[in-house]
Amino acid sequence: MSRRVTIRDVAKEAGVSTATISYVLNNKASESITPETIARVNAAIEKLGYVPNLSARALRYRKSNLIGVVIPQTEPGKEFMFSNPFYGDFLSAVEYTARTRGYRLLISGTSVGQSYIEIAQNHGLDAIIILGIYPTDDINAYKETKIPLVLVDCYRNDHFFHSIGTNDRHGGYLAAHYLIRHGHRRIAFVSGAVEEVGVNQKRLFGYHDALDEAGIPYDRELIFSGNVGYEYGAETALDIARNHPDVTAVFATADIMAAGVIKGFSDAGLSVPGNVSVVGFDDVFIANISSPSLTTVRQNIKEKGRVAVELALDAIDDPSGPKREVIIPLEVVERDSVRDIG
Amino acid sequence: MSRRVTIRDVAKEAGVSTATISYVLNNKASESITPETIARVNAAIEKLGYVPNLSARALRYRKSNLIGVVIPQTEPGKEFMFSNPFYGDFLSAVEYTARTRGYRLLISGTSVGQSYIEIAQNHGLDAIIILGIYPTDDINAYKETKIPLVLVDCYRNDHFFHSIGTNDRHGGYLAAHYLIRHGHRRIAFVSGAVEEVGVNQKRLFGYHDALDEAGIPYDRELIFSGNVGYEYGAETALDIARNHPDVTAVFATADIMAAGVIKGFSDAGLSVPGNVSVVGFDDVFIANISSPSLTTVRQNIKEKGRVAVELALDAIDDPSGPKREVIIPLEVVERDSVRDIG
Repeated sequence: MSRRVTIRDVAKEAGVSTATISYVLNNKASESITPETIARVNAAIEKLGYVPNLSARALRYRKSNLIGVVIPQTEPGKEFMFSNPFYGDFLSAVEYTARTRGYRLLISGTSVGQSYIEIAQNHGLDAIIILGIYPTDDINAYKETKIPLVLVDCYRNDHFFHSIGTNDRHGGYLAAHYLIRHGHRRIAFVSGAVEEVGVNQKRLFGYHDALDEAGIPYDRELIFSGNVGYEYGAETALDIARNHPDVTAVFATADIMAAGVIKGFSDAGLSVPGNVSVVGFDDVFIANISSPSLTTVRQNIKEKGRVAVELALDAIDDPSGPKREVIIPLEVVERDSVRDIG
Repeated sequence: MSRRVTIRDVAKEAGVSTATISYVLNNKASESITPETIARVNAAIEKLGYVPNLSARALRYRKSNLIGVVIPQTEPGKEFMFSNPFYGDFLSAVEYTARTRGYRLLISGTSVGQSYIEIAQNHGLDAIIILGIYPTDDINAYKETKIPLVLVDCYRNDHFFHSIGTNDRHGGYLAAHYLIRHGHRRIAFVSGAVEEVGVNQKRLFGYHDALDEAGIPYDRELIFSGNVGYEYGAETALDIARNHPDVTAVFATADIMAAGVIKGFSDAGLSVPGNVSVVGFDDVFIANISSPSLTTVRQNIKEKGRVAVELALDAIDDPSGPKREVIIPLEVVERDSVRDIG
């Protein structure tokens, strides 16, 4: 009752073979197909409301019109990290740009032990946009699939793929330098996992650069890393308030964490920026709605998403063409979470 | 150089026809295929690293393993409403549940004049989960496609489809009743567009019910509706502060709007809850990070997403089976944005 109309139904209705239907659908000339047959096929298609399945066309032209987007999960096999608004903003921009170019997004996380490559191949994805890359991912496995790939915020590219990101080391420098200019010397660094050649490692290097430049000794005790989230930010602020009372400023590498830091200090009876100053990273809407509003290192997330799609389309059109590396600029946006103590 | 391995490559390598490859891949018995041929085909598949395209299987079994999720856009043809964390939370739960059952999500907005049905048919979606429904959407058109559908937060269901939602009228009542119990009588209602049989209309009815019960006259002047967002909330609070100084409380039908309302009052020199009390709706993380933290009507968004997928799978397995309507309970979560003035 509820099955879809198939090519076989159309063939039966028109009294021709399914091959004939295919010829008509694909506008292929064939001496054996008369204009009358074409008219009969079209009438049957219209009568039954048949819609050619894109899967059939995907098979023929090897094109699915699907771009996969790999969004980080909170931990392997778990849910997406959508509690960080960065990902929603990025995905909105990617979807909007893809849509205007006739592409849809396939969204899928991976279960433990499952490779995204399997998913990509099963669905015949035309391209994949990967946000960050898991240390466990074998980037060479992607190369073997020949599926066009765009790497976002990934420092493991060997120019085999298009990439887009920010200069995270410069971003870390901007944040720490801003705090130092406002008289701070005991500055805690709060981030997600600091992985080899990951964005947080680069931001930590930039923080270190700024301290170095100002002749401030680097103190390992002030480096905190855990889950990128509000909760970890709040816990860490409590920890800092209790165990490091000389800290006057915090650089948190995501606004969502910075909002948690503000909450944690507030719970500890400390005011931001009265007692402690805070600088975030990203400039998502949380930076505006937090109280106080957040001074942060702004990146243009919408632009990042838009360009990621443009690069994916480039890679689809010209798989063996030269690979581009796009860097989105960063800047400090001054709001109310930093006090000058100089 | 970079094209994918096709069935033709495998056929050439194995020295057989592509039809033979298909037979082997689909484990179809055929007298003409010897065990030696099967071994040769499998060796060729392994050697070339060939992955059968799911499109081919989708064609055969009419199954794409794709569930479409229709997310509201800020306006027709524009970006997704991801600035409201409700959608990210919902999508995370949908994706996680779908993944554990072997399905992927297809995400696509629509351009002006484009029907989602066209997208669904082109990609052979197994089911569609629709969040809300646009007034311009013709629900009957979906029926004709025979694609299993799950309606979320939609009051236009005639039991042709599974549905999941909350009792929004009760939710509106809970919010207004809570404020009335705390002594408030001049209560503004701030929401997105109040559409015929939409969730905001139901919440408005519930607000009205609570006023009625308490003998408080309904005042049209205190009903504000616009874009569901932080900005509109902030603008409206400024408007209320300026033009309705007797208002002592606001019920905003989304936490993201309530956060904007708090900001607007703060800009107008009014404190929440000192001068004005605010109740939100949803209980997304914003309710926790706003300052003051937000008293709100909580719905379990993760549960909503999980059940939406279960219903979609039910509909795929048994398209003509009885249709279920699931209602997720609501409750008021008390935090710091309401003051008792009774």
